[in-house]
Amino acid sequence: MKVEHIGIAVRSLESAEQLFAKLLGSESYKRETVESESVTTSFFKAGETKIELLEATSPASVISTYIEKRGEGIHHIAFEVEDIHQEMARLQEAGFRLLNSAPKRGADNKWVCFVHPKDCNGVLVELCQELR
Amino acid sequence: MKVEHIGIAVRSLESAEQLFAKLLGSESYKRETVESESVTTSFFKAGETKIELLEATSPASVISTYIEKRGEGIHHIAFEVEDIHQEMARLQEAGFRLLNSAPKRGADNKWVCFVHPKDCNGVLVELCQELR
Repeated sequence: MKVEHIGIAVRSLESAEQLFAKLLGSESYKRETVESESVTTSFFKAGETKIELLEATSPASVISTYIEKRGEGIHHIAFEVEDIHQEMARLQEAGFRLLNSAPKRGADNKWVCFVHPKDCNGVLVELCQELR
Repeated sequence: MKVEHIGIAVRSLESAEQLFAKLLGSESYKRETVESESVTTSFFKAGETKIELLEATSPASVISTYIEKRGEGIHHIAFEVEDIHQEMARLQEAGFRLLNSAPKRGADNKWVCFVHPKDCNGVLVELCQELR
């Protein structure tokens, strides 16, 4: 499994984009809103891994809840998998609880599934597979 | 800049290693204690990025403090740089506060420097350069 991206919860995409452009020395290459998750995302390249900034588009978004509880910061690590159904089955069998029973559509043309952070030492793990 | 590793603060390296081995489908390939930081680290490969588990070796370790405040979870993102002195100067000029004024020795044969999380949307950013 490779690290496909690291998700970072931010209050303002506008100012975080400027900051990460300065930090990484390169601009965000795309923005995308995922209506079903109430988030707007902004992507940066960092080698083979992406940095995904996440801003809530509504107070009901998980990103709003996260920032209220813990402040801005690293929200999740996403691992790219070849076959998300197979990987979900493997992890469930190994005792990991999944936050969704079927893959759902995420940003950046992906099927995604989240693993319970309580089963991963407090880390919210995303599995993602490119839509084909 | 590429993501060299993602640091994860854990209470027990022993149990976290077992868990991440199951999650990633591969074993930790090395353990290393950094006396100056009061941490023991354990490394996994995930594509070109590493996952670094961090366990405190003393209650005075930054990892103990982190876990007390926020619980276990993602602690930092480390970006590999070619010339850490040059990168530190560039970031300082761009207004980022650095947590150490000179590079210090980190795990895995690296010079490291941390950027203040308040200047990076709550993300603790590490710059690292391979020791030559």
